[in-house]
Amino acid sequence: MYIGIDLGGTNIAAGLVDDNGALINTIDCPTESSRKSEEIADDMIALCEKLSENNGYKMSDIKGIGIGCPGTVNNETGEILYVPNLGMDGFNLAGYIRNKINCPVHLANDADCAALGEYTANGNNAKSFILITLGTGVGGGVIINGKLYTGFNGMGAEIGHMTLVHEGELCGCGKKGCWEAYASVTALKRQTMDAMEKNPQSKICQIYKRDKKVSGRTAFDAAKQGDKVAREVVKQYAEYVASGLISVENIFQPEMIVIGGGISKEGDYLLNPIMEYVNKYRFNKHLRQTEINVAKLFNDAGIIGAAMLCK
Amino acid sequence: MYIGIDLGGTNIAAGLVDDNGALINTIDCPTESSRKSEEIADDMIALCEKLSENNGYKMSDIKGIGIGCPGTVNNETGEILYVPNLGMDGFNLAGYIRNKINCPVHLANDADCAALGEYTANGNNAKSFILITLGTGVGGGVIINGKLYTGFNGMGAEIGHMTLVHEGELCGCGKKGCWEAYASVTALKRQTMDAMEKNPQSKICQIYKRDKKVSGRTAFDAAKQGDKVAREVVKQYAEYVASGLISVENIFQPEMIVIGGGISKEGDYLLNPIMEYVNKYRFNKHLRQTEINVAKLFNDAGIIGAAMLCK
Repeated sequence: MYIGIDLGGTNIAAGLVDDNGALINTIDCPTESSRKSEEIADDMIALCEKLSENNGYKMSDIKGIGIGCPGTVNNETGEILYVPNLGMDGFNLAGYIRNKINCPVHLANDADCAALGEYTANGNNAKSFILITLGTGVGGGVIINGKLYTGFNGMGAEIGHMTLVHEGELCGCGKKGCWEAYASVTALKRQTMDAMEKNPQSKICQIYKRDKKVSGRTAFDAAKQGDKVAREVVKQYAEYVASGLISVENIFQPEMIVIGGGISKEGDYLLNPIMEYVNKYRFNKHLRQTEINVAKLFNDAGIIGAAMLCK
Repeated sequence: MYIGIDLGGTNIAAGLVDDNGALINTIDCPTESSRKSEEIADDMIALCEKLSENNGYKMSDIKGIGIGCPGTVNNETGEILYVPNLGMDGFNLAGYIRNKINCPVHLANDADCAALGEYTANGNNAKSFILITLGTGVGGGVIINGKLYTGFNGMGAEIGHMTLVHEGELCGCGKKGCWEAYASVTALKRQTMDAMEKNPQSKICQIYKRDKKVSGRTAFDAAKQGDKVAREVVKQYAEYVASGLISVENIFQPEMIVIGGGISKEGDYLLNPIMEYVNKYRFNKHLRQTEINVAKLFNDAGIIGAAMLCK
């Protein structure tokens, strides 16, 4: 039995995970990130103890604890290197917990943990595997020969910040034209609102009135009802996603690419227009091709993957 | 002592390379690619024997032969998989030569061999190393933990075919907006000719009249003479190169990126405007940064790297 922890800016979630990567039970508490690093770490230990006890285990039954956190970490030492908004830079989180409870503890970036979770859910045997998470931003996690690839400084696989449109839309990173500025759910919401403004008669506007907000689902919901404007929004968004996926495929030729994030729940409504574009423009037309799928785990991927860091 | 062979569509070049990656001597012969695969392979064996003899060695002194060829190969079996214009698809080149002369033989893609050559020239110790070759196209070779990364099907690291401008200039691969369509020397020549057409008074046109052709050097030569139009061409080209390099850096965070191809001989005239853009827009501003340099070996990189496949 393993424990996976997802350390976020708002909440800390922990999950009990078995040897096969199945999630047994979860528990959480607020992060309160303004506190001292040691206090946050102590809360993580308390969560682990409570989670074990709740499920009839002793801490000595836990073979390892894995932690995923946003930003950049040193996977080898377990130190937090650069995590904006968490105030824990320079703190050896894994080392601190390891010393207190005598259990192996591993630390990794949260997008990398999610990749490891989806890799597990997809059978653990792809020679090369990439998870692309479409959310507030576009995240990436790369697994080569069963191991996370994180670059020489731990900051690798910021795939969302490859250029899609040279000198295009301004991205949060300060550069223009990043894939993230076109293929994130944030970008889809902007694209949806632009279409609403230009087409006040479209079904998108009716759905907006019903939901009182624009989400990543708004355009998809209207498209499913046959709305032409919404279909165009979805098609254009899918092409932005697909264009970046082709780049990822051409660079890595990974055995599998999985598309994650809440929007991947749209399933074939998202995947079909993506694959139409990918099949038309992918470079490799002669050899075995990369398999592209939507995610299997959704929100649990991070916790399961964190636990799998210990295997 | 090793032998490295560069199998091209026009010529086969072989070089004697010592344990440290120093090139001792070279020899070549025409490929005549319309011939049977076995005949081409027999010529490669004859080249090896002659090269050894010319330099006072017996074939039994040669610890291994490495071969680089364009297109896709199976690095493990030594089979040629998909190499347009060579007519050798499905032929186990390494196996054929190995059987005939009882010597270890390895086969790899030529861009990958060039990467291995530059990696050797740069000290063999970067945890992750990428060579980007700016030539007729834009080639890529990726070395992770001392090993070539070629993807699950051997076709990996076609970095020139990542998108730089979504739906931009048409690329030879059939997709629009590839990095190659903006950052290759072919693209630079097109950009130079466009500038000449719009500015017939510029020094570029004088240099064109002197050389009777447009090359990758034309704009650089005019820029060095202070021509404003040429400076703008070089700046714009460097930004296209740099924008792609930032993507490569953000994806891999490699310890080192080396820029190769004939145009890298421009040295600081190319590297300075590239680094100006990279330093402004690179994602990683807080941790150790990727070192970006121009190549050290130029044309010999492929032969030296092929030889180093055997180490």
